[in-house]
Amino acid sequence: MKKVYVAVSLNEQQKQRLENISEDLRLVYEKDYDANAIVGNVSPLELLKYKELEWLQTSAVGYDAYIKKGVLRPGVILTNAVDVHSQEVAEHAFVMMLMLIKKLHTYRDNQHEHIWQEEGKVKEIGKMKAAIVGFGNIGKRLAKLLKGLGIYVIGVKRTESAKPDYIDELYTSKDLDKAISDVDAVFTVMPGTKENVHLFTLDTFKMMRPDAVLINVGRGNLIAEDVLYEVLDKHIIAGLALDVFEKEPLDKNSPLWDYPQLLITPHAAGFFHLDSAFEAFLDLVSENLTRYAKGEELKYIVSEREA
Amino acid sequence: MKKVYVAVSLNEQQKQRLENISEDLRLVYEKDYDANAIVGNVSPLELLKYKELEWLQTSAVGYDAYIKKGVLRPGVILTNAVDVHSQEVAEHAFVMMLMLIKKLHTYRDNQHEHIWQEEGKVKEIGKMKAAIVGFGNIGKRLAKLLKGLGIYVIGVKRTESAKPDYIDELYTSKDLDKAISDVDAVFTVMPGTKENVHLFTLDTFKMMRPDAVLINVGRGNLIAEDVLYEVLDKHIIAGLALDVFEKEPLDKNSPLWDYPQLLITPHAAGFFHLDSAFEAFLDLVSENLTRYAKGEELKYIVSEREA
Repeated sequence: MKKVYVAVSLNEQQKQRLENISEDLRLVYEKDYDANAIVGNVSPLELLKYKELEWLQTSAVGYDAYIKKGVLRPGVILTNAVDVHSQEVAEHAFVMMLMLIKKLHTYRDNQHEHIWQEEGKVKEIGKMKAAIVGFGNIGKRLAKLLKGLGIYVIGVKRTESAKPDYIDELYTSKDLDKAISDVDAVFTVMPGTKENVHLFTLDTFKMMRPDAVLINVGRGNLIAEDVLYEVLDKHIIAGLALDVFEKEPLDKNSPLWDYPQLLITPHAAGFFHLDSAFEAFLDLVSENLTRYAKGEELKYIVSEREA
Repeated sequence: MKKVYVAVSLNEQQKQRLENISEDLRLVYEKDYDANAIVGNVSPLELLKYKELEWLQTSAVGYDAYIKKGVLRPGVILTNAVDVHSQEVAEHAFVMMLMLIKKLHTYRDNQHEHIWQEEGKVKEIGKMKAAIVGFGNIGKRLAKLLKGLGIYVIGVKRTESAKPDYIDELYTSKDLDKAISDVDAVFTVMPGTKENVHLFTLDTFKMMRPDAVLINVGRGNLIAEDVLYEVLDKHIIAGLALDVFEKEPLDKNSPLWDYPQLLITPHAAGFFHLDSAFEAFLDLVSENLTRYAKGEELKYIVSEREA
């Protein structure tokens, strides 16, 4: 009998579904340091307290915090929630871009000040070009949303592969500058790998068109904070929408909050805000609990560990 | 030789294009009460001063102000800018809806207060249903944007006609209540006809789902102000986006500015904010100037006059 601590909030029906998977699993919903397995994102600082732990299933796709040295004992299996949040993150990024393009953030600001004032020209959706940097699960869903509106889509991928039918151009990372140099919107949806840390330098932003916008729903450390301030202060591009930051939560006194051309959301893009995301997570958990009970190899094992 | 006062701002190339149409037309760009024709929206109060006026070509599709008694002398031809603004109005309405659905107005408000706080569930775009009330030129373009994202679209039209392929259902106005009763978003894009004044009563809003949003880019007098306040105060529906109001501009001290669930834009949806809208207007003006010079019947004549 294995004890599984389920650290996400479930209704009765959802509990029943997981409990029916195997008689060899005992599911508990309160913190239990004797658990053999954990489902959900628990504090990385607490993980060594789970002496019997064999497996951690996170509810996020990002796993940076769990592969740090001293967080998980060697031998503990880590699995992440691959593709579970892709649709919600893509939709969030997509609508943030449209909001910037149509100047609706500015109209909302004017509303706060009771200002009735038209704000000039905007872009026509179907005549836009967008680049998606990081063409994985989120990028693909984003591409489908953009193409649905007739937007020209350029993908940028780490490794070379065939261009899918539903995008217009596909580049590898070495041609990043070329890919982003003539688009209206750049979406950055890359994972938090070491090579992506501070990848977007001031020179990268200067490659973009001054009327372009950037939407980052990947990792906050893609852009160093001093670069971000310089881009904003010098108006290198027309607008930014950021859901992720180098330090989260963003400090209450951060000057970032007050840049009118910057739209901030609180790492909320992939937070189970779509019902379908949670359903997809439960599907994955069911699959992995089934495999766990049978002693089979789990889905989406993260083999990476920091030295 | 006819004198045409062009009351819209043109660059040299655009002026040249219109001036090349006919040697029988003399175009002037400063106000001239001797003009035989006017292109653009001039003050209705001034029109009787143009003693030689034969034709007014407005730059808007709405013409309510020009058909009032005593504004145009009998016999003066009025033509309006049919379909010129449809795409920009549709896109503005479309993005306002998405912004509400994704709670980005709330995140922008939180940003003003430096509040890092996630705001809970949002709707999945491709699982939504929308109703478009007033299925004319704007409605059709709106439908195409919505269908591009997989949204289920119900059209509501004054007169009966065959359902176009690109929408899912089509109703006539008598079934308005049925059409809007189970959708996530209601778009109102009807013209300012008498039968539409205060058409949306409190009962209409109560027919809608409490989680639905309404986007009005048609006419402000669709909703009486007291109804609007009741809908907002009692949270009859989840959100509204209004580009038009009974009295415009909205008074600086209007309480409407401060409802968090109401997104306000200043009658800006169809303001030549897309380059293509102005190009479409110039195409229409060229066509009508050509016809005017030849003495032919003009395009889009408004025969309606208030008694």
